Amino acid sequence: MSQFKDVEILAFDTFGTVVDWHGSIAREVQALNLAADPMEFSRAWRVGYKPAMAKVMAGELPWTRIDHLHRQILDQVLADYGIDLSEADRVHLNLAWHRLTPWADSVEGLTILARHYTTCTLSNGNLSLLANMAKHSKLPWDLILSAEVFKAYKPDPRTYLGVAELFELKPEQVMLVAAHHDDLAAARACGLRTAYIERPEEFGSDAIKDVSPQPENDLHAENFIELARLLEADRGKRL
Amino acid sequence: MSQFKDVEILAFDTFGTVVDWHGSIAREVQALNLAADPMEFSRAWRVGYKPAMAKVMAGELPWTRIDHLHRQILDQVLADYGIDLSEADRVHLNLAWHRLTPWADSVEGLTILARHYTTCTLSNGNLSLLANMAKHSKLPWDLILSAEVFKAYKPDPRTYLGVAELFELKPEQVMLVAAHHDDLAAARACGLRTAYIERPEEFGSDAIKDVSPQPENDLHAENFIELARLLEADRGKRL
Repeated sequence: MSQFKDVEILAFDTFGTVVDWHGSIAREVQALNLAADPMEFSRAWRVGYKPAMAKVMAGELPWTRIDHLHRQILDQVLADYGIDLSEADRVHLNLAWHRLTPWADSVEGLTILARHYTTCTLSNGNLSLLANMAKHSKLPWDLILSAEVFKAYKPDPRTYLGVAELFELKPEQVMLVAAHHDDLAAARACGLRTAYIERPEEFGSDAIKDVSPQPENDLHAENFIELARLLEADRGKRL
Repeated sequence: MSQFKDVEILAFDTFGTVVDWHGSIAREVQALNLAADPMEFSRAWRVGYKPAMAKVMAGELPWTRIDHLHRQILDQVLADYGIDLSEADRVHLNLAWHRLTPWADSVEGLTILARHYTTCTLSNGNLSLLANMAKHSKLPWDLILSAEVFKAYKPDPRTYLGVAELFELKPEQVMLVAAHHDDLAAARACGLRTAYIERPEEFGSDAIKDVSPQPENDLHAENFIELARLLEADRGKRL
């Protein structure tokens, strides 16, 4: 019997789940010939991400879109490395987050999943970032949703419940797809279904991530193609 | 010399501009065999649209998405016609707005325009309606934007300026494309560029609309293909 027959929406975390932020940023850092290890620079930039959003959610900063948080963190990382970079190059590098490249299975997997489900982003990235990313990488979203729509960053419940509310569905009719157990745990606490996606190289090929299953998640898949197969098996028919 | 070289975003009104609401609704009314002239019933339903949004903007109603305004108007129109319709049929008919079919040139035109510009909706329709419509009719939006994102209905300036603000552009870098002079006038007052699209059959083939040019609009085109040609002529190269 189908466990997930009521699921109508697949909402996707994007950074790390759909796109390879680490590899993309490292390549752009390399291209600029910065005096830093691209693999480490990319991780250092990303480390500032959650604390910056936490400041917004704690009210220490007004609502600030990710583009601006990324820029503040970038300036700090450059200062930490003692790198002098022109304003034009900073603007260009900051927009690298709009040009992140998808994992090899992402476009094909999303295309298959969209045959039966409504697919959307549920990302802390701002709308213009996500729209530019989708255009750049041909991500076939049915709808781009962002923390910016809900004026709250994940893991705030308003984001997960907001997806269900926009479509006038119950939380259990929405499945969050993410490569991060904490994101999935927060979604689960709101009543959403959860699918974990292994992305062992999210932080770089030199820093392989533990992608062990956690039994709390409804599904665990290597990639979006396997997710499609698991959902097909549950439905008893092809997507 | 190009007049519009700084334009980056084409924001599209949808009902009447991209999709044929009148024909689509009339066909669904016909299919239900309602005791009403489908052409007139469709127009009667639409007549309630602007007053309903005006009530929301005047604060007489809390924020209410178009799906719910459509349903309230539908119930009134059915009562006016003395038509008894089951709840299931009302739900089904109300969702006809999620299934509106595009004008013949819409998908091809949007595809051409998206080669150079970022294309988005700027519609009073709610996000789920617009996402379902795009999925149903294969409308290739780069981003779906709605009054629901700005919590204000057009012609409120927050909607037009909101598009520019999301992309951190100047208002004149956004062009509104619409089949309605009042929508375009409100956008122009905010500093946006404007393109009028002729949709003479918007209200039905039995109620041809005056589609005369108004000189205040930057561009006037028969359809999206002609809009693409006008923008190509301005740029001096193919899209």
